[in-house]
Amino acid sequence: MKEHEITKDKSALSVSAGVKGGHDGMSIQPKRFQKKKKENFDIPKLAGEVRSGLRTSLSKAITLIESSNNEHKEQAQKLLQELLPYTGKSIRIGITGVPGAGKSTFIEAFGMMLCNLGKKVAVLAIDPSSTLSGGSILGDKTRMEELSRNHNAFVRPSPSAGTLGGVHKKSRETMLLCEAAGYDVILIETVGVGQSETYVRGMVDFFLLLVLTGAGDELQGMKKGIMELADCVIVHKSDGENMQKAKRTVREYMQILHFLQPATPGWMTKALPVSSIEKNGLSDVWKLISQFETTIKTSSYWETRRLEQTKEWFHLMIRDHLIDSFFQNAERKVQVKTLEEAILQGEMTVTQGVRKLFK
Amino acid sequence: MKEHEITKDKSALSVSAGVKGGHDGMSIQPKRFQKKKKENFDIPKLAGEVRSGLRTSLSKAITLIESSNNEHKEQAQKLLQELLPYTGKSIRIGITGVPGAGKSTFIEAFGMMLCNLGKKVAVLAIDPSSTLSGGSILGDKTRMEELSRNHNAFVRPSPSAGTLGGVHKKSRETMLLCEAAGYDVILIETVGVGQSETYVRGMVDFFLLLVLTGAGDELQGMKKGIMELADCVIVHKSDGENMQKAKRTVREYMQILHFLQPATPGWMTKALPVSSIEKNGLSDVWKLISQFETTIKTSSYWETRRLEQTKEWFHLMIRDHLIDSFFQNAERKVQVKTLEEAILQGEMTVTQGVRKLFK
Repeated sequence: MKEHEITKDKSALSVSAGVKGGHDGMSIQPKRFQKKKKENFDIPKLAGEVRSGLRTSLSKAITLIESSNNEHKEQAQKLLQELLPYTGKSIRIGITGVPGAGKSTFIEAFGMMLCNLGKKVAVLAIDPSSTLSGGSILGDKTRMEELSRNHNAFVRPSPSAGTLGGVHKKSRETMLLCEAAGYDVILIETVGVGQSETYVRGMVDFFLLLVLTGAGDELQGMKKGIMELADCVIVHKSDGENMQKAKRTVREYMQILHFLQPATPGWMTKALPVSSIEKNGLSDVWKLISQFETTIKTSSYWETRRLEQTKEWFHLMIRDHLIDSFFQNAERKVQVKTLEEAILQGEMTVTQGVRKLFK
Repeated sequence: MKEHEITKDKSALSVSAGVKGGHDGMSIQPKRFQKKKKENFDIPKLAGEVRSGLRTSLSKAITLIESSNNEHKEQAQKLLQELLPYTGKSIRIGITGVPGAGKSTFIEAFGMMLCNLGKKVAVLAIDPSSTLSGGSILGDKTRMEELSRNHNAFVRPSPSAGTLGGVHKKSRETMLLCEAAGYDVILIETVGVGQSETYVRGMVDFFLLLVLTGAGDELQGMKKGIMELADCVIVHKSDGENMQKAKRTVREYMQILHFLQPATPGWMTKALPVSSIEKNGLSDVWKLISQFETTIKTSSYWETRRLEQTKEWFHLMIRDHLIDSFFQNAERKVQVKTLEEAILQGEMTVTQGVRKLFK
C-alpha cells in the first residue's frame, strides 16, 4: 500500500513537472534528475489555478499535500500558506455511521441536492482502516458516480492511510485547499474505526451520525461516546416498508439524546428520518444545518470552536511529532518491548521501566 | 498547595527517620544533613511492615510514593518493587458521580457493609481539581468518620493534585501498596473533572456511576461518554419520598443503557436503586460486583484487561514523559505560544509551525 502510494504521488506530480520539462511522466529517470524537476514546481501558478477552481489543479495540489517526499512537503506548505487567506468560508460537515448505514448513498443524494441548490460541494474521506481493508470508503469512485460527474462537485477518494496522525493532518490541509478552491460545503466521511470520529469532530462545524432502524442492536456495534459527538442523528433508509419502524427509531433516538450531552453547546442534537433513495428528508437535513449555522454563529461559538480546533490541531501535531520521533528509532522500539515484558512479568515497576528507558 | 504538600511529606517521612536518628521530626535542620537522613530509609523493613498490615507504615509508604523528592522517588520504587509480588489480589472498584450525588455517604455505607462481611477495605481518591477547590473529596476525613475508625478499613485522603499525570501515576502505585497490605477491596473515588474518570476506568476492574433521580437534568451536567464507562449505575438517595421517582429513574437508565455500548465486553451494565441512609440496595451492589467478578474471570477478560491496563499505563507514562520534558523548557513554552498566535492569525500553516518548533 505504502509503495503504491508513493508511485501514485510520483506519477500524479510528474504530469505537472512533465509539462515544464517535456518529459513523459511515466518514464524512469535517474534520481538526481527527477529531484531537480521536483524543485521546479510553480507554486504561485498552482495557487492561482486552485483559486480559479480548476479541478485538475486542485487534485494536483492535494496529491502534493499527501506526498511523503520531503521537497514536496516543503512546497505543499508554501502552497497552503499562499492559500490560507482564502480558506475558512465553507461549512464543514463530518459524516459517520456504522458499516452498511449507507453513507455514500446519502452523500451522493445529499451532495446532488446541494449542487442543485447552486452550492459547490467537496467530498473527502478519512479512512484509517484502508491499509487493512484496502480502502473501504470512497476507494471505489463509482459509488458516487452521479456526484463525481457534477461540475459543482469534487469527490476525492481516501488517501492511502498509514498513521492516523498523518491522515488527520493531510485531511485538514486538503479541506483548506478545497475551501480556497471555492467549495461552499465540505463533506468529510469517516468510518467508525479507532479515533477517526474524534479527529473528524475536531475539524468540522457540524457532525452527522447515520444509523438504521432498530437502534438497540445497531448501537451495540457503534463506538462508545459516538452519540455525543453528533449534532444530528439521521435514521437512514426511512423508506418503503421501513417507514413505521423508522419513525419509532427516530423517537427512540430523540429520547436517548435528551439524556446525553449535546455535541455543541447551545444546540440540542436532533434525530431525523431520511431516505436517500426516495429523496425524503434531505432538505430537512440542510434546513437543520442552516438553522445550526445561524444559532451557533449568533452565540459566536462558531468562530471560537474553529480557533480552538486549530490550536488543538497544533498541539496534537506537536505531541505526534514528539512520540513519532521517539519511536522512529528501531532500537528504542525493541527496548520498549523488552521493558514492557519485564513489567508485565512483575520484574519491575512501570516507573522503573520509564526511568530505564530515559536514562 | 504545592508548598503544603512538600511540608507534609517532610514531616511524615521524618517520623520514620527520626526513630533511627533520634531527632525530632519537626525540627529545622541543615539541608545536607536532612538529605543524608533520607538516604537511610530502611526499605525492606518498611516493606515488611506494610505487608504485615501496619496502617501507620502503609501511610508512610504512600507518603513516600507521593513525595516529589528525587531520593524518595528512588526509594519508593525500590519499596514498590519489593511489594509487587504481593499485589493484584484485590477487586478494584472505581466510583464517580456528579457533585451532590452522595459519593462519600455511599462509600462510607458500602465500605462499612464490606467491613462487616470481614473484608479489608481501602478508600483512595483521585481529585484533579483539588489544587483549585482546595481538595473537595476526601479532603475532609470526617466525612467518612465511621469507616475511618473501623480496623478493617483504610481511608486515604486525596493527594495534593498537581498534574493529572502525576496523580494518576501515584494513585496506581498507592493502590498497589494497599493490595500488598492485604486489602481485599479498593474503592477509588473520583470527581467528574477533565479526564479523571478515563484514568480511573483504566486502573479498575469495576466502575460505578452514582446518579440521582430525574436522569434528564442530571445527565446534562455529566461528562460526555461517562455512561459508557460504567459497569453499574447507582440511582442514589432512593429513599423516603424519593422512592417512586427513583424506580422510574432506574427504568429510564436501564432503557438508555440498553442502547449504549457496555463498558466491559460480556457484561450488560445495570442500574440499581440504593439508599445509603436506609442501607437499602448496598448488598445488591456487592452481589452484582461478585457476579461480575465470576462472569468476567470465566471469560478470562479479567486478567487480560489488567495486563492491558498495565501496558497502557506504561505507554501513557512514556508519552507523559516526552511531552512534559519538552514543555519543561520555559523558552519552548514561549515559542509554542508565539507560533500558536501566528497560526491563529493565519500567518503560517500548522505544519510550518510544527517544523519551526523542531528545527
